[in-house]
Amino acid sequence: MSRFATRACAYACSVVVAPIVVARAYSERETNSSTVEVENELAPRAAVSHDERSRTRWRYDWNPVNEEVKGGASKQPTRVVWLVRHGQAEPENGDVEDGARRLTSLGLEQSKRTALRLKMLIESGSVDGDFAGSTPSVMIHSSMTRARETADVIAESAFPHVRREVSHLIREGAPCRPEPDTWNQKEEVHQSESPRIEAGFRSIFHRAAADQRNRPSGEAAEPPSVVHEIFVCHGNVIRYSVLRALQLPPDAWLRIGLYNASITRVDVHPSGRVSLRSLGDAGHLPTEALTWN
Amino acid sequence: MSRFATRACAYACSVVVAPIVVARAYSERETNSSTVEVENELAPRAAVSHDERSRTRWRYDWNPVNEEVKGGASKQPTRVVWLVRHGQAEPENGDVEDGARRLTSLGLEQSKRTALRLKMLIESGSVDGDFAGSTPSVMIHSSMTRARETADVIAESAFPHVRREVSHLIREGAPCRPEPDTWNQKEEVHQSESPRIEAGFRSIFHRAAADQRNRPSGEAAEPPSVVHEIFVCHGNVIRYSVLRALQLPPDAWLRIGLYNASITRVDVHPSGRVSLRSLGDAGHLPTEALTWN
Repeated sequence: MSRFATRACAYACSVVVAPIVVARAYSERETNSSTVEVENELAPRAAVSHDERSRTRWRYDWNPVNEEVKGGASKQPTRVVWLVRHGQAEPENGDVEDGARRLTSLGLEQSKRTALRLKMLIESGSVDGDFAGSTPSVMIHSSMTRARETADVIAESAFPHVRREVSHLIREGAPCRPEPDTWNQKEEVHQSESPRIEAGFRSIFHRAAADQRNRPSGEAAEPPSVVHEIFVCHGNVIRYSVLRALQLPPDAWLRIGLYNASITRVDVHPSGRVSLRSLGDAGHLPTEALTWN
Repeated sequence: MSRFATRACAYACSVVVAPIVVARAYSERETNSSTVEVENELAPRAAVSHDERSRTRWRYDWNPVNEEVKGGASKQPTRVVWLVRHGQAEPENGDVEDGARRLTSLGLEQSKRTALRLKMLIESGSVDGDFAGSTPSVMIHSSMTRARETADVIAESAFPHVRREVSHLIREGAPCRPEPDTWNQKEEVHQSESPRIEAGFRSIFHRAAADQRNRPSGEAAEPPSVVHEIFVCHGNVIRYSVLRALQLPPDAWLRIGLYNASITRVDVHPSGRVSLRSLGDAGHLPTEALTWN
């Protein structure tokens, strides 16, 4: 077995037990009664392997830490990063440059519903009541038309006073060759676009700045425990960036699908820990409004 | 650097570019105008590294393939695996054994909303119109009270005629030591429970059986392209199983959080490809009904 294959296999095969027979017996069990109590006879003949080769290690030093964070991490806020995929866009068309494609009427409707959901999530503090009543400190959107139009709807419907920025780094593109490679993108496209998308990831994911505040200075005596930032961008950028943020293999990005106008939330703690709280959440859209492109 | 550290770093560091300066300039930009056009000057001085050490490899042989699948994979249905976390349960209490903890009234309400959402998702075919009108072929729930009660509500509210099974394999527990290890569970608990949860993963994730059908035989002339199965279980089991199914490092499971009564969808294709379509989707719950435990 080559060194490459050994490495790739390491975490896929990290847990080795014997109960395949159990799973098979399970699926073959047939009956006419409404509920079946399946007796799972489990004989773990081999212990789970917890040797070092099957383990990852979380890197706390994944982005530069300033002196204040080093000295007193607990005083820094947690960054709550909200990643919103743009609404449904017009289909690709040779006459329209990709970055100029506009939202459909369904895309506008999706964006409005997403705006209202986002407002409720951020204002209620969802399950983290300690930051109820928050507003986002910034909304950054990609410079592609479909992202800008989605951000326009979010601003108008939910956050008219939130500062906005435009970024070229988080435009759609080819982040890195996916594995398995069912996309078959040309290598030169990956080579030319992946540094930009990696830079986009770094612009989204970092610890809070030492002086980052959710409210205007002077308004709150206590520094906030959480700051919210919204990024409106694209499927490939979000999939790649979330995997990178979680320190998972980024070439797995195409194993994930994201609905249009879906909401992904990732918390970046001052300690350097990163936590995925939702991925591609679109439950706020009616099922007939669920689309992928 | 030890061999372990080198390995752990491999995918965390797989993409090496130079634009940290860009990200910093970006966050320091301040202005009073409503929308800021930030010029992202990107100078990718180092190309992205795509050498073999930064790549994973998808294993198509992750579960046994029967002869019919090998001979004609396209005739096999795709399994759509719906993983539902139980609703909110009573807090842990020394008087009640963990497996006997019951749903709260909010947990019952969450479960009902989740049942209706699941029914709409499955019946509409969501964005895969070719299987509109489907019903699940089975609902399997863990033998813990909170999962059984959630399944009871789902059956009553949405799928009264769907076959049900109970599994001990997908009860809550300690799947493998998480990294970073913020749980600090005793090693013997991991050692004793991880083979069972690994067996639970294998009972959930496998290719469709050669003769698996969504409707009673004889009713449909054409075999279905998709079969739906619902698993009602627990946060740790879902987090671990999804990572294993995606061939990602399973010890990353605690980097993910899942809301009570959330819906996770994973498609298992006859080719052996696996696709995550939603993770912990709880957008169908009002924000005041979002809970973690």
